[in-house]
Amino acid sequence: MANKPGIPKGTRDFGPNEMSKRNYIFTTIKDVFQKHGYSQIETPAMENLDTLLGKYGEEGDKLLFKILNSGDYLEGLDAGKLMSRGSNAAALLLCEKGLRYDLTVPFARYVVQHQYEIEFPFRRFQIQPVWRADRPQKGRYREFYQCDADIIGSNALLNEADLINIIDEVFSSLGVKVTVKLNSRKILAGIADFIEQPDKIAAITVAIDKIDKIGIDAVSSELLSNGITQEGIYNLQPLLVLSGSNTEKLNKLADLLQHSSTGLKGIEETRVLLNYLSNSLLKAKVEIDISLARGLNYYTGTIIEVQAQDVEIGSICGGGRYDDLTGIFGLKDVSGVGISFGADRIYDVMEHLKLFQPETLGFSKIMFANFGEKEALFCLALLTALHRAGIAAELYPDAVKLKKQFAYADARHIPYVVMAGENEIAEGQLTLRNMSTGEQQKVAPEELVGVLLG
Amino acid sequence: MANKPGIPKGTRDFGPNEMSKRNYIFTTIKDVFQKHGYSQIETPAMENLDTLLGKYGEEGDKLLFKILNSGDYLEGLDAGKLMSRGSNAAALLLCEKGLRYDLTVPFARYVVQHQYEIEFPFRRFQIQPVWRADRPQKGRYREFYQCDADIIGSNALLNEADLINIIDEVFSSLGVKVTVKLNSRKILAGIADFIEQPDKIAAITVAIDKIDKIGIDAVSSELLSNGITQEGIYNLQPLLVLSGSNTEKLNKLADLLQHSSTGLKGIEETRVLLNYLSNSLLKAKVEIDISLARGLNYYTGTIIEVQAQDVEIGSICGGGRYDDLTGIFGLKDVSGVGISFGADRIYDVMEHLKLFQPETLGFSKIMFANFGEKEALFCLALLTALHRAGIAAELYPDAVKLKKQFAYADARHIPYVVMAGENEIAEGQLTLRNMSTGEQQKVAPEELVGVLLG
Repeated sequence: MANKPGIPKGTRDFGPNEMSKRNYIFTTIKDVFQKHGYSQIETPAMENLDTLLGKYGEEGDKLLFKILNSGDYLEGLDAGKLMSRGSNAAALLLCEKGLRYDLTVPFARYVVQHQYEIEFPFRRFQIQPVWRADRPQKGRYREFYQCDADIIGSNALLNEADLINIIDEVFSSLGVKVTVKLNSRKILAGIADFIEQPDKIAAITVAIDKIDKIGIDAVSSELLSNGITQEGIYNLQPLLVLSGSNTEKLNKLADLLQHSSTGLKGIEETRVLLNYLSNSLLKAKVEIDISLARGLNYYTGTIIEVQAQDVEIGSICGGGRYDDLTGIFGLKDVSGVGISFGADRIYDVMEHLKLFQPETLGFSKIMFANFGEKEALFCLALLTALHRAGIAAELYPDAVKLKKQFAYADARHIPYVVMAGENEIAEGQLTLRNMSTGEQQKVAPEELVGVLLG
Repeated sequence: MANKPGIPKGTRDFGPNEMSKRNYIFTTIKDVFQKHGYSQIETPAMENLDTLLGKYGEEGDKLLFKILNSGDYLEGLDAGKLMSRGSNAAALLLCEKGLRYDLTVPFARYVVQHQYEIEFPFRRFQIQPVWRADRPQKGRYREFYQCDADIIGSNALLNEADLINIIDEVFSSLGVKVTVKLNSRKILAGIADFIEQPDKIAAITVAIDKIDKIGIDAVSSELLSNGITQEGIYNLQPLLVLSGSNTEKLNKLADLLQHSSTGLKGIEETRVLLNYLSNSLLKAKVEIDISLARGLNYYTGTIIEVQAQDVEIGSICGGGRYDDLTGIFGLKDVSGVGISFGADRIYDVMEHLKLFQPETLGFSKIMFANFGEKEALFCLALLTALHRAGIAAELYPDAVKLKKQFAYADARHIPYVVMAGENEIAEGQLTLRNMSTGEQQKVAPEELVGVLLG
């Protein structure tokens, strides 16, 4: 093969530098999940197409990667029938399995399949890649990780509070300042009741979101052209300009939506949730935002979205409460609430803000330069001592020029190099070089662990 | 959908208990890899079929999972041509991508593709699933994780020593007693030189391996029926019964293979390697075993295989030195040495020997029982304090019967439950219940962190 090999479009290799940063993000999230009692599960990359088809709409069905049946899959197939069906329908004659498209449907399938082994309420998290045959473009990949936590089998708002605490801990550990935006599907339903045009919720939330950018007049005419009545728009005015503290917003909403029992329920739930959060010393800013409309045909209660304060990049985490996760697989009334971290966007935010610290990225802390067979043997015993002390350390494997060994250490972000040549060994004093300053000091072999840990 | 949903045969769901045990294994291995300066990489699940085909033999090509092209993949295809080709050849008209079959070929592809970004010698590790359309059976899955470490771009035997140190640290951390068996492809070549029947190496190693079980006579007649000459078998006798310490074995080999320069080179290399290892205080037993013949058409130097001492389960880790990783992709002379841990078998060994300890499995250390709204609010502040102290803790989200809450804690392996009811809160004394003994003690809220950490 003469051509340089490549990978399928929309997929990525992650080399040592990227992986160590990605690992730092995933490990941070994972540790917080576990600290809050969430347990990891994994499901297979391949699911039966039965499980996946029809769950993501017609467009989603087309974006599923389908796996060609193994063995003699053409046997018994009628060529004319196959070709006449068209590519989409024909795929079902050729394939029984597909790659997972998200983590939610496999989780729902998992819960139904294992319902008698699961202890409810079930706090689970899952960090695995998903695959979508989307047209690849900047920031959109055909393979990417999702990072989800859900608690199901409990209606308590304490669960929402727990997840917001998780969000707060993750981002404060990562050093990313965030605003957690909250809304409630029930408040949105109350607004629809209020203007008596329940089918216009989406248009209304889009309009509210634009107020700051295009002003009230432009928004009003947009609403009009979207079929909201002149009276409806008049009634909506106080909502369009809703401002103040969270308590003030809730008070105004309670006043406006006083005739909608669903709306009032949403307001009350949000009050309870904010009260829970008041006991948790959150570092994140929590803000009610009634323009938040993610997952409108899915979420039934609280809606959550997280934005970085110092970078404009859209949502870096989001989620909400749903009433019926597993109904599609025949198990009714399983309610839950979940969040999903956008690892790729968090990565971009952290790169942009220069938040990755070399010392957290898992590279070796020290390298022994290699001066030849005898010196290497001397270093091996020290290397073992460092490893036993939990210090990441390596010995350069070949006795090549020191310059080349230093270049390797630099490229690999290794902060210290030990030189133990013939003289150093004879004198019992190693030379320890700080690679960023170039400073060198003498260290006795038995002091090395202490110097590095100290 | 009325039927209970399932997953494709040969694949597995991993629930909280299995996952926490698997994570314990993977994290242990990963930590040791990193401590030795190995960096993680990840490659896409999908590779171009160009990259995969022809690398695993004809049988392997059939076992690749192929991904149906997206979009209107039937367009321009001739139905007759498709059907007449047969399923295997037709697959290439329908598919351009396949799921990775192992981590070695993607790694070779990665090295060639990124050769100008990589700092050599390159220590990389990779822990990802692979997929094979094998017939599923006990212990053989269609999706399973591989866990590989390789160092490439250096011929030094220090690298073999480093990998054996990694093996030793991994298994001693996991509490599994192991024997590391060593052989050399060069010693095997020397044996072939010695009996002048180089094509019979495989038959000879199989025979040596059987000596203990079936005896020398049965082995001799097996060798005869495999086409080894009577004279060859006579000459082989000393090798078939090779015994003693590693040094004794090497001395006998040096004597027997004195006319084979390749054989002597293999013996010398093994001596150097054992000398390196003598400085590392290994807990594993290291044993020369000339019946070791893994990867005969692949490995060119040291061959490594690891067996558990207390369970008969076959190899749980293996590897070796190869001269030409990337030649298949047009980059010549890239030598390296690598090992691969068998995570599923290690899991089985640890289950069998009961080596998984609940406290290492990442479940919550403590649960707050839920007595209602007011009490929950009181507990939330304590919960935050525990989380800040790094203690995994959760609050049961619903104020259901205590019995149900205890059952949940038991099922989730949570060792402590805190009861903070109205009285406890008034008195400023929580009740802390040890779930395994049933013992209860009084603890002041501000002492809770200390009691759990102490």
